[in-house]
Amino acid sequence: MAKKKTSISLIGAGNVAYHLGLRFYEKGYPIQQVFSRKIRKAQKLSKKLNATATNQLRDIKPGSDIYIITVRDDAIVEVAKKLHPQVENALIVHTSGALSSKVLKPYSKNYGCFYPLQSFSINKTIDFEKLPVCIYSPQKKNRQKLYKLAQGICSNIYEINDQQKSVLHVAAVFVNNFTNHLYHIGQQITEDAAIDFAILKPLIRETMEKIEQHDPAEMQTGPAIRGDRETMEKHLQYLQKYPDWARLYRLISQGIAP
Amino acid sequence: MAKKKTSISLIGAGNVAYHLGLRFYEKGYPIQQVFSRKIRKAQKLSKKLNATATNQLRDIKPGSDIYIITVRDDAIVEVAKKLHPQVENALIVHTSGALSSKVLKPYSKNYGCFYPLQSFSINKTIDFEKLPVCIYSPQKKNRQKLYKLAQGICSNIYEINDQQKSVLHVAAVFVNNFTNHLYHIGQQITEDAAIDFAILKPLIRETMEKIEQHDPAEMQTGPAIRGDRETMEKHLQYLQKYPDWARLYRLISQGIAP
Repeated sequence: MAKKKTSISLIGAGNVAYHLGLRFYEKGYPIQQVFSRKIRKAQKLSKKLNATATNQLRDIKPGSDIYIITVRDDAIVEVAKKLHPQVENALIVHTSGALSSKVLKPYSKNYGCFYPLQSFSINKTIDFEKLPVCIYSPQKKNRQKLYKLAQGICSNIYEINDQQKSVLHVAAVFVNNFTNHLYHIGQQITEDAAIDFAILKPLIRETMEKIEQHDPAEMQTGPAIRGDRETMEKHLQYLQKYPDWARLYRLISQGIAP
Repeated sequence: MAKKKTSISLIGAGNVAYHLGLRFYEKGYPIQQVFSRKIRKAQKLSKKLNATATNQLRDIKPGSDIYIITVRDDAIVEVAKKLHPQVENALIVHTSGALSSKVLKPYSKNYGCFYPLQSFSINKTIDFEKLPVCIYSPQKKNRQKLYKLAQGICSNIYEINDQQKSVLHVAAVFVNNFTNHLYHIGQQITEDAAIDFAILKPLIRETMEKIEQHDPAEMQTGPAIRGDRETMEKHLQYLQKYPDWARLYRLISQGIAP
């Protein structure tokens, strides 16, 4: 007889719960309950998952193998606290990239993280074959459970402890938020000069695609790495009308300089 | 009778000449001569293009409709000077993103730029349907010629004057070289903490793909745009061991702050 699959309850019914829930369900994991403070939201998702819905944490039922908390970071502790009386020492995890697994420690002796490192939006399909999922629990048996659970829905699984996760978050700010800000600057600079920003998009794509195969440092090009002072001076002169971006230009160029 | 296609000579036989040359040839443009200081390089390319090869600028023949100079930026003026006695007032263009078309003015009354905005490498196929090509000449009839020539090999053609091109170069430094530097920082931060940088790659790809459809400023996420001082302080504390990156973190976060 095939082993029974891990049963899951979803605490939260937002984008993360939606995509994870559907994927687990499609892969044959029984979903027992879906909680959302908005009952319609809970119902909408629970119907797709053949689960029950509730908007009361005190109605969460014991008996699931794992409770996955997908609510906003600043609501996680509050939710875990209210969950505790019902589920006691069941395995409880959250999906936050910013918070340590330890925030759940007071509410169950079995706790951890199940953190999919990608932004989820309702209209966008998630490629679970590529999605990196970071799992962690201080207890070995729970790490193993989480690893196995992740294996059931994806291929890129990383064991990342709480300390590493906080470092990962710093790095993500650089490569995601800060990169996006550079795109914004590029757009402003071009549009202020009546140039279509779209001209730069193939170059932007290529810059990104290169790092699939190569070390970014090895692939660096441009005036800073060449030590081309004349071009940099010309650029800084043009940037006089954007003093903050001129400072940024100097600082990053210094960082690139060989 | 079909109109005869523009005939081309290629001055330079590096990556740009290679990809442009092959594309023109495939699209039925007659290539007359290929110049390279290294005769073997000129011959290697000229064979593929059914053209003749030379390593002497004085042997460049008149009679091509256009001479495309693809040599290194710092060699362009020197090459144009030596080209002049042979070709006189033929249309001469260079493919540089950094230089003005005006550097060619002393050497022909018909001059301009034909600047493909993408980095070319020998082993990588260029998607000419997506490749942005910036063309410019101060003379209207030459602009029209260049536009038509570009239309023969690609679909994304932009008329970009010399002033705009220099602005485009500044913007390209931000979105290409500086973004690449942020990738480098992300890689260092993760690897120093024994985290596989590959975890971040799907996020990096997504950040880039979002700008195909949305304004970067509208899609900004993370602690700086949220004004989440607590997280930023935590990050800055971690970055103490990388003082330059801490400065960069502060400066970009200020730029992002609403």
